[in-house]
Amino acid sequence: MSDLLPYLESVAQEIDHMIDRYFVDKVGELNKASAHLLAAGGKRLRPAVVMLAADAVKRGSSTEILPAALALELTHTFTLIHDDIMDDDMLRRGVQTVHTKWDMQTGILAGDVLYARAFEFICMSKANDKAKVRAVSMLAHACADICEGQHMDMSFTHRNDVDEYEYLEMVKKKTGVLYAAAAGIGAVLAGGTVSQVKALYLFGLKTGIAFQIRDDLIDLITLAEKSGKDRASDLREGKQTLIMIKAREKGIDLLKYKRDLTDEEIDGVIKELTDAGVIADVKKVAHDLVEESNKHLSLILPSKERQLLMEIGEFFVTRSY
Amino acid sequence: MSDLLPYLESVAQEIDHMIDRYFVDKVGELNKASAHLLAAGGKRLRPAVVMLAADAVKRGSSTEILPAALALELTHTFTLIHDDIMDDDMLRRGVQTVHTKWDMQTGILAGDVLYARAFEFICMSKANDKAKVRAVSMLAHACADICEGQHMDMSFTHRNDVDEYEYLEMVKKKTGVLYAAAAGIGAVLAGGTVSQVKALYLFGLKTGIAFQIRDDLIDLITLAEKSGKDRASDLREGKQTLIMIKAREKGIDLLKYKRDLTDEEIDGVIKELTDAGVIADVKKVAHDLVEESNKHLSLILPSKERQLLMEIGEFFVTRSY
Repeated sequence: MSDLLPYLESVAQEIDHMIDRYFVDKVGELNKASAHLLAAGGKRLRPAVVMLAADAVKRGSSTEILPAALALELTHTFTLIHDDIMDDDMLRRGVQTVHTKWDMQTGILAGDVLYARAFEFICMSKANDKAKVRAVSMLAHACADICEGQHMDMSFTHRNDVDEYEYLEMVKKKTGVLYAAAAGIGAVLAGGTVSQVKALYLFGLKTGIAFQIRDDLIDLITLAEKSGKDRASDLREGKQTLIMIKAREKGIDLLKYKRDLTDEEIDGVIKELTDAGVIADVKKVAHDLVEESNKHLSLILPSKERQLLMEIGEFFVTRSY
Repeated sequence: MSDLLPYLESVAQEIDHMIDRYFVDKVGELNKASAHLLAAGGKRLRPAVVMLAADAVKRGSSTEILPAALALELTHTFTLIHDDIMDDDMLRRGVQTVHTKWDMQTGILAGDVLYARAFEFICMSKANDKAKVRAVSMLAHACADICEGQHMDMSFTHRNDVDEYEYLEMVKKKTGVLYAAAAGIGAVLAGGTVSQVKALYLFGLKTGIAFQIRDDLIDLITLAEKSGKDRASDLREGKQTLIMIKAREKGIDLLKYKRDLTDEEIDGVIKELTDAGVIADVKKVAHDLVEESNKHLSLILPSKERQLLMEIGEFFVTRSY
């Protein structure tokens, strides 16, 4: 993975540069609220997937579709701002969430502004118009799915009988489809064939699901100062994650921890889950998804970019932040 | 105006038919919440503007761009759902608002779903791809402006020194730009020239501002059972409307009514404003805008559709619901 981290770093710099140029230091409270979470960092993984997918289809095309790469980050950030309102989370990317720093009203609008800008930036890419229309449709379809995924996620909180199938369906919509759209949009804007676009879409979908499973693990395991989020917020909110589902299968009821926990108590929960094999089982589901996703890439000609896409999948399920 | 009302009725039927087909009777709570306000009626004025603008540019083209007409109604409805959350309004189109019938979380998501669908439907129109990309950009730009307009509107509530210029700027963004986009998108998808698109855009912008000024009057004057909204909600919420600004210029402070009022008390306020000439002044601003908007239409060849657009402008500032 020696090439991946420098690559991700270079993408992050390009995206940060565009964010500075188009979003930071604008006048007006709403512009500041829209820029707040965008400018607070973030790994810019979805833009990296857009650009790698484009270059995997046609080397060099990624520089022409940078606005679309930014569009995916804008979309992701809009969903975070709205999700934070819905879940009433206080901390994100190490800073106060938008509705906490401003108010609920401004949070809704700040998200809505980024939502609009995402579609504007898709249209600003250098690509043929047919590809742009296809990209707009893919992004719009992903956004509708994300809403459904978030709604499923919230509805799960009132239940203790969610099974692995339902969980994976929710995560597919909540997280998978945006990675799928990232890869698909990169491919389509670069002029990819139908089968190339489909292959990259499915690659994104499966690695995206794996990404979320890892995210759930990180929520539990990583200390707040490293993740920039409240630690174990899923446990506190009684979220139905794959960890909770696999734990239940082994007779461990994580819902009893639906309250504030100390770091020591969380460490105790982790030990219990590790000893019961829950953590290993959850990791295996994520790894299997990445393995499947790599099979889709076999339809793409070998290249440095295809290799980096495979490494991104691996990174998704091994990262600790 | 003998032709306009039957025309609006026929557009409403076409749009209602599409809403039934694509949004009503879908399974799942989120789909029901997304469809709730859409299916509760509404005058479908923005779709009518899309279709008339298209036919004014190229007769017969409106049937090919019906999905874009629906897209404007979806966009309008998404903004209503989010606005109702921000203002915590209970009643809209004669039914409970989405966040009242469900909850704030579902309201945010229901709006976000319609937002996405709007862009999907724009892309589903029969038009060339370049025009579609232009239409997507126009809609996205309008959405960002609407957010800014709503934010300005909310920020005005804490002030009692908003002047007419600021008010008109706010209304331009909050309401004008979506009518502008409606007319502009209709024109661009129908293959209009740059000057035709611009003329229709400006027509929509000015009639849209006039529409909102009339809406503020209706909020005050029309009984709840007719308007389907809470009566005098602007007064109760201390909204800075042109009525309040013109009243202040004449020494009448409407902010003192920032509470629940009986129908008799509201009638008393209306009499006071009428006697002072405030109502007439406000009506004049709206009528002048409609007159200006008609001048833009002189760049379009005379046709039945151009005539109907002029009648829509007139209708906007004379309607009582």
